[in-house]
Amino acid sequence: MRVGEDKILSGRKVAKAVESDLSKEVERLKDLDIQPGLTVILVGDNPASEIYVSYKEKACKRVGINSTIINLPKNISESDLLAEVQKLNEDNQVDGILVQLPLPDHIDDEKVIATIRPDKDVDGFHPINVGELMINNKGLPSCTPRGIMEILARYNIELEGKNAVVIGRSNIVGKPMATMLLHQNATVTICHSRTKNLAEYTKNADILVAAVGREKFVTADMVKEGAVVIDVGMHRTEEGLCGDVDFEGVKDKVLAITPVPGGVGPMTIATLLKNTLTACKERRG
Amino acid sequence: MRVGEDKILSGRKVAKAVESDLSKEVERLKDLDIQPGLTVILVGDNPASEIYVSYKEKACKRVGINSTIINLPKNISESDLLAEVQKLNEDNQVDGILVQLPLPDHIDDEKVIATIRPDKDVDGFHPINVGELMINNKGLPSCTPRGIMEILARYNIELEGKNAVVIGRSNIVGKPMATMLLHQNATVTICHSRTKNLAEYTKNADILVAAVGREKFVTADMVKEGAVVIDVGMHRTEEGLCGDVDFEGVKDKVLAITPVPGGVGPMTIATLLKNTLTACKERRG
Repeated sequence: MRVGEDKILSGRKVAKAVESDLSKEVERLKDLDIQPGLTVILVGDNPASEIYVSYKEKACKRVGINSTIINLPKNISESDLLAEVQKLNEDNQVDGILVQLPLPDHIDDEKVIATIRPDKDVDGFHPINVGELMINNKGLPSCTPRGIMEILARYNIELEGKNAVVIGRSNIVGKPMATMLLHQNATVTICHSRTKNLAEYTKNADILVAAVGREKFVTADMVKEGAVVIDVGMHRTEEGLCGDVDFEGVKDKVLAITPVPGGVGPMTIATLLKNTLTACKERRG
Repeated sequence: MRVGEDKILSGRKVAKAVESDLSKEVERLKDLDIQPGLTVILVGDNPASEIYVSYKEKACKRVGINSTIINLPKNISESDLLAEVQKLNEDNQVDGILVQLPLPDHIDDEKVIATIRPDKDVDGFHPINVGELMINNKGLPSCTPRGIMEILARYNIELEGKNAVVIGRSNIVGKPMATMLLHQNATVTICHSRTKNLAEYTKNADILVAAVGREKFVTADMVKEGAVVIDVGMHRTEEGLCGDVDFEGVKDKVLAITPVPGGVGPMTIATLLKNTLTACKERRG
């Protein structure tokens, strides 16, 4: 896959290629009598969470990972939830543990995440995995930024010495994204809601990652001619799904851009599967 | 302390103020029969390391922290060193453990650091402390960048919305520095050896942190009029000590600048003391 052939960076295609590799690995593990397993804990009945969890379940099936969903009532106590996580920590058949966020208000997300065994933390949210990423060690990386790096790699997009700008500084996208780009030798700027003159930064970006959480926030006048634009947003509007980038306005100006849907989203899930296999191989492969 | 009164940001003065606060805390802990303790492990006889360790010992004495230095031979095995760390992990009188780097080549630094109990890791190098910093949680922060933040705070230097540029991406200065500036709402760029057109970034910086490791690397033409410049470098030359910034050339152009010596260095040590007290209070205070 090369830019030029197609300026639309298809996360869907890359995800297919990744999943095909993973399926082969699952086959190899079968020969060792190992069946990789991901367990997702879903608390309450948030409709969006239910949809995300069902996507993850289907993706596991596609590559042959054993997927289990544990539904817990929304009034579950924090200590009961932590006990559930502990059980999974000790279960040898469980390679990946994912607690679907958000959790009800009476539960401390961070406490729950910190209770997951780091080597089963396939979301890459445990502080030790965050730290390992920061110092460029092995560990389980956050799925969305890792998936974006995979898109950039498979499309042979050069990062060394490039001016990369990330809009957004969340713990699950913006900050780890900046770190990963830095480790690939890009010069990296993190912008956010308090940034003044945002367009002055984005207009100079060779690589622009939008993780803002606002519909069509990045417009053509904010983008450099020939840039590579990665859109992390996902919004449901009356006209259908859209991202943080005004795709129609921007696409003619850029070298390459991820669409919404079919861009970053599928790669987040493919990376979750990959993390589950990595966790499985590291622990018992 | 305010800029304008004096454009030279005296890390020495800030360190004195910090140490004075810490001395009072040590007194309060004495009333609880608690004597905070820092233990430094020094392997081999690297002369620079011996000097650094002696500075740390003197600083402990100034504020009343009990300081112990364990000298180990340079041919000590990795497993013996790890056993030494384990002993300190379990010693209730030891609040802070610091293994002076660099270690001899046959020893894996990262393994040693990861063996230190995170709540005694007063250098802030353990992956879990790195991760906690990244997600803006409590934890023991890396001393040099934390010391710089203290200088900026005590001189009332506004960071929100400012364009901050960090040159250098080490695990102990560049990356945590960028993270701390980001958490104070600066827009942050990390530059490094692979950055192209470095001056284009630095010339726009309101806050410029030089952690390059090269003598007088940052010259006046690279600095914005009215910037705040922080010099992390420390080089011994025939004309005496100098930093990563050409101090004489730059000082007239800027709003404020840290000198070398007397700038960042004393704050690194003051923060080590502060981390030791924090560790003491968290664990047994």
